[in-house]
Amino acid sequence: MTDNFLLPAGFQSAGIACGIKDDGITLDLALFYSEVDAVSAGVFTQNQVCGAPVVLSRKRVQRSTTRAVVINSGNANACTGERGLKDAEWMTANVAQKLHCHSDDVLVCSTGIIGHFLPREVLSKGVPVVCDSLGGSSESFSQAARAMMTTDKVQKQSTRTIQIADKEIRISGAAKGAAMIAPNMATMLAVIMTDAKLSVEQTDQLLRNSVNQSFNCISVDGHTSTSDTVFLLANGEAGAGKMSPENLEQFQHALNEVAEELACSIIRDAEGAGHFVTIDVTGMTDDQSAFTIAKSVAEDVLVKTAITGADPNWGRIISASGRTNVKIEEENLSLKINQTSLYESGHPVSYDEEQVSAGMKKNKDVHIELMANLGTGKCRFWTSDLTQEYVRLNSEYTT
Amino acid sequence: MTDNFLLPAGFQSAGIACGIKDDGITLDLALFYSEVDAVSAGVFTQNQVCGAPVVLSRKRVQRSTTRAVVINSGNANACTGERGLKDAEWMTANVAQKLHCHSDDVLVCSTGIIGHFLPREVLSKGVPVVCDSLGGSSESFSQAARAMMTTDKVQKQSTRTIQIADKEIRISGAAKGAAMIAPNMATMLAVIMTDAKLSVEQTDQLLRNSVNQSFNCISVDGHTSTSDTVFLLANGEAGAGKMSPENLEQFQHALNEVAEELACSIIRDAEGAGHFVTIDVTGMTDDQSAFTIAKSVAEDVLVKTAITGADPNWGRIISASGRTNVKIEEENLSLKINQTSLYESGHPVSYDEEQVSAGMKKNKDVHIELMANLGTGKCRFWTSDLTQEYVRLNSEYTT
Repeated sequence: MTDNFLLPAGFQSAGIACGIKDDGITLDLALFYSEVDAVSAGVFTQNQVCGAPVVLSRKRVQRSTTRAVVINSGNANACTGERGLKDAEWMTANVAQKLHCHSDDVLVCSTGIIGHFLPREVLSKGVPVVCDSLGGSSESFSQAARAMMTTDKVQKQSTRTIQIADKEIRISGAAKGAAMIAPNMATMLAVIMTDAKLSVEQTDQLLRNSVNQSFNCISVDGHTSTSDTVFLLANGEAGAGKMSPENLEQFQHALNEVAEELACSIIRDAEGAGHFVTIDVTGMTDDQSAFTIAKSVAEDVLVKTAITGADPNWGRIISASGRTNVKIEEENLSLKINQTSLYESGHPVSYDEEQVSAGMKKNKDVHIELMANLGTGKCRFWTSDLTQEYVRLNSEYTT
Repeated sequence: MTDNFLLPAGFQSAGIACGIKDDGITLDLALFYSEVDAVSAGVFTQNQVCGAPVVLSRKRVQRSTTRAVVINSGNANACTGERGLKDAEWMTANVAQKLHCHSDDVLVCSTGIIGHFLPREVLSKGVPVVCDSLGGSSESFSQAARAMMTTDKVQKQSTRTIQIADKEIRISGAAKGAAMIAPNMATMLAVIMTDAKLSVEQTDQLLRNSVNQSFNCISVDGHTSTSDTVFLLANGEAGAGKMSPENLEQFQHALNEVAEELACSIIRDAEGAGHFVTIDVTGMTDDQSAFTIAKSVAEDVLVKTAITGADPNWGRIISASGRTNVKIEEENLSLKINQTSLYESGHPVSYDEEQVSAGMKKNKDVHIELMANLGTGKCRFWTSDLTQEYVRLNSEYTT
């Protein structure tokens, strides 16, 4: 994994091993810090059962004085009741004291095992250390990205730069998650930082737009975890000043790229996965309908196991697209796998099955195109296949 | 498997190998026949992509002159367009001609591979043979039950008798399906017969009531197939005459037992399954909400793989119950696995984890109880676990 990802101006980060994870040497405490007040936005899990950090951070985003995001891995602080909420508050207060800011200006995420209380003793030692370790180098960024990981095999970072008003604006993010599927009820977390100057409303809207076509369009197992969180922090330190509508459009495009790259890196690292699957649903009456169909296909275990076996089993895909509440018409449906047409306007097409299967065996990437011929609604969705290794990982683990 | 299941009075059946399946010796054509006109009801898949037999049979139920149900395995006749519909009609016309009744009085199901046309040449030879093979013995019933099977390892039959007006009324059914999960897009099919005298409306209502708490409450992989069908045929041949409201209640109870036994036998035979899981959700605002939560837990691959590993991972169950649109309150949720309390009113409970896990390892049956403390709504749902063997079966297969 390359270590060349740069932080935007005015941001620092750190990652340390503080002892939440048993072995004592795996990084488990990350900190992202803005040297000046930053505008923040957040998008959170829609699971009604959500971790204490989600409850707390939800109240603290959409403000213009955010200074830090602290993240621990190895413990989700979810299903922990009132004590969990107090622990999350305590954790941010410790960070705030060390960084000389308000608790309210510190956001928090926790990921790892569910139903266990945060270990205050190790965190009270770890928080000062991680604060003292802050730095603006690519190594510091890399350490923070690694400290967020649970069952991830690789760290996940992305960056883009754009030119605005003769200034270089950078957008950099780190994410974790072998999707929502990790044995310890791990989660999808991402922190994206930029030195662009944005208002609270702009930051929130830009983030929601990006998440809707990236993190909300990935699925490994359909399980929305208790802790999913994506933050965007903007501190204006690039010095480019306020953005014009054209600038904002340019920024949105780059932010979308960062979000998509992070989201796809989660799918590529999905537990036990052998294939990376891109699903394009087009020709639906609207985008939401296309999303529903794409998600149904992406989360169908019969579709996923067929892909594992390099089997161009179009029947499973067509059937999965028919089992939602969204209206489709069988006689208007067409399907391609890796550019080969298998099903056209409700009829099976004669094709070289061995060739398509060989292609699926050879390449890790599979492209499914489902065309409904009902309108212009569309959605691109990403998923992984379902392997015996996935089942082994998720069944052999014991809490 | 015992062969002692009896058909109700006035019913006959047969099962033969006609050559749809490659080996030529595995039974693949079943026929259920009423010697006199029978009232019929049917419940069908809600998948918008449905097989030709579903389209045809849907038009032919809720009538009082039904005489036969013909079922082939090895070919689903689904996603086959206009030609598939003509093939289904042709198949019933052949049966009707041989049995001297109207085509409209013959119902049809097909289960097996999707997207292939029915082989008319083998069926045109097989239909006369299966008609000539009809008989009222338990062996005939058993043959028909076997001829419906695809990847099922065991045949599935159930029977109950009740006394009404000094007459013995029998309800007997056969079902197939390793749930909706078989490699060839196999399906859940069931034919239930009775010699009770029922009106069209009564038959329909009794069947729907039973299906709602049996076949609609099972899931292996959440994939509603293109061909799911359950029929109820009532021919009045027990001679008990019309039924009083009390008789109907008694009949409903027995029918529920037959339907539940058949539905559970499908889950017990689910592909690769190592555990049979009963999920009781209680204390919800209404039954529909309880159903939604139970289904979400039953179809969650993290829950299923935890059960495979005999892991009492209550966090995954609580999280799965929170990710639907149904309102729950975390602080009111409680959970038991095999009678041991793991989570009470939103708080983890201290329990002997090794003992609970040992129990899950020892017994194939697992009982999950989720209590919401919001009202009196409840649902009982059945599912299987998710094993490496399931993935192997569904990925190594090639169409």
